[in-house]
Amino acid sequence: MQDLGEGSLDWVDGRLRIVDQTRLPETYEVLEIHQSADLVDAIRRLAVRGAPAIGVAGGFGVVLAAREHGAGTDDFRAAVESLRTARPTAVNLARMVDRVAARAAEGPKSLLSEALAVRDEEVAASLSMGRLGAALVDELVSQPDAVTALTICNTGGLAAVERGTALGVIRTVHEQGRLALAIATETRPLLQGARLTAWELERMGAPFRVVVDAAGPALLARGMADIVLTGADRIASNGDTANKIGTFALAVAARYAAVPFVVVAPESSVDMDTSSGEDISIEDRGADEVVKVRGTPIAPEGTGALNPAFDVTPAELITAIVTDRRVVRLDRGESLRSVPPDP
Amino acid sequence: MQDLGEGSLDWVDGRLRIVDQTRLPETYEVLEIHQSADLVDAIRRLAVRGAPAIGVAGGFGVVLAAREHGAGTDDFRAAVESLRTARPTAVNLARMVDRVAARAAEGPKSLLSEALAVRDEEVAASLSMGRLGAALVDELVSQPDAVTALTICNTGGLAAVERGTALGVIRTVHEQGRLALAIATETRPLLQGARLTAWELERMGAPFRVVVDAAGPALLARGMADIVLTGADRIASNGDTANKIGTFALAVAARYAAVPFVVVAPESSVDMDTSSGEDISIEDRGADEVVKVRGTPIAPEGTGALNPAFDVTPAELITAIVTDRRVVRLDRGESLRSVPPDP
Repeated sequence: MQDLGEGSLDWVDGRLRIVDQTRLPETYEVLEIHQSADLVDAIRRLAVRGAPAIGVAGGFGVVLAAREHGAGTDDFRAAVESLRTARPTAVNLARMVDRVAARAAEGPKSLLSEALAVRDEEVAASLSMGRLGAALVDELVSQPDAVTALTICNTGGLAAVERGTALGVIRTVHEQGRLALAIATETRPLLQGARLTAWELERMGAPFRVVVDAAGPALLARGMADIVLTGADRIASNGDTANKIGTFALAVAARYAAVPFVVVAPESSVDMDTSSGEDISIEDRGADEVVKVRGTPIAPEGTGALNPAFDVTPAELITAIVTDRRVVRLDRGESLRSVPPDP
Repeated sequence: MQDLGEGSLDWVDGRLRIVDQTRLPETYEVLEIHQSADLVDAIRRLAVRGAPAIGVAGGFGVVLAAREHGAGTDDFRAAVESLRTARPTAVNLARMVDRVAARAAEGPKSLLSEALAVRDEEVAASLSMGRLGAALVDELVSQPDAVTALTICNTGGLAAVERGTALGVIRTVHEQGRLALAIATETRPLLQGARLTAWELERMGAPFRVVVDAAGPALLARGMADIVLTGADRIASNGDTANKIGTFALAVAARYAAVPFVVVAPESSVDMDTSSGEDISIEDRGADEVVKVRGTPIAPEGTGALNPAFDVTPAELITAIVTDRRVVRLDRGESLRSVPPDP
């Protein structure tokens, strides 16, 4: 099936196609998703992942659900509920599913047109975040012509529709010829950094190195990175940010080492209805992902694990939040309330 | 070959025996080491590891070198040099090799007797650290009867000769019936936490969970552990401590969350000739350990990596240092100079 380029998913010839990210980097496979239940499964097993990407996928899922069950039926409503709760932490999924489902009464064409609008807005958002983020990097680092940026998880085209959030900013800096090195933490348990970010950085021809997660904070302490750029699964109204497990460790180390720590996420990840990080539900994905690595056991049989998939970085540790429509300098006392998004 | 119990190595019937820790937890295999060069190889590939254990092993290595080459010959001196530099970060190895080799002129019996003394002192040191450490845990946590302790890497009997350093303290707390939970970080790249600490905790019947390294700091921020207990590969005279990569991340998170952070190591790891962490050589072990997990590739082929095996935790982030002969409360302004070891 066709290559989706740098992206994670698209709507092609009336079908939802997604890259199966569980099989990268070894195998690039595009799946065609016909049933909304198959999409729920794909989201749960992280075949499609990343807050913006699962939001867009969820929107198309509503279109699939309407085809299967007829918009407005009980089965449609059940399918929509199943989509919006497939994963709990990223706000994008429930929000975009609700946004598209709200058009159900207008018929299938309106549903599809809303889902396509969600997709197009995320593509535009990635471009905008890249521009705003790269300009902020210039401001924050001492040598803007040779930037070493540290990042976690995968926040590139695979996590969005194209280009991405934090990795989209790194891509823009690279396109401007100013990237000295990208350092990607491997991001256990599911290794999105080692598998996916490395794959994207290689495809874009950027200089990069992978490190184990535990090395990220230590490299910051040793002055080996100029800036930390991360994505977000949900940003509460006070600026507290839920993101991949390990983000907090980078933030607290960056603060200790006086390295700027910047969150990059579309407005669709900002949740003004959640007042602080304490109110964000953190998904625990069970022991299996921890005690095995890509199927290989790494601990004695029967070993139990805690597996929080996300952590919360308090706003006070964040230098700035970059969205597609604003740059909020928390380090200067700005807040999501004091700096409203550009229209 | 016989089971070495909870320990990592021993001198049995005139032979050095070591547990091959690269094969745990699946396979428990005891190797008999006849040549000092084989011991160098075993130390480099981490078949025997842990600062106290490689110190003791190095001492026996000198005995083997004297048997092969005759004490005091050029070949003996070359073998000793090769032993003492097999790994650079832990001070124990060079120190114990030098200590035993200094007896070369007195003949083989003196060499062996010194190597056995090093072993016996480390066994006694572990018992003492367990006692002193468990008493300090009592002082530092709010509920001494139900302690949740977080630890990194492996610092148990496998890292020493018996019982160990930080994990020896956890063992003592467990034996006292006061351990609610041990949380072991998996410790990438070589997974000493998931493989070895889990194996030891299971054998001692202690309640435990494994977590990915990135989760350790986040769990501290969420108040899910009462204390962090880590070992050390080298403690500089100002208290800066080199230990497994990831230790710094736990220390800086513990400080942020106001959780006590305690280093447990024998006096043999204290290096008053190194003035601060900046002077400690940090071993980079190459990309291979990062881009593969137990032989399975996890990144695109050819991916480069940075692989610092250790990091340095500044003294200011350390609550206390527990050795076999003193407890130094850095949080109360004490220092390694102001609190000399008990005789």
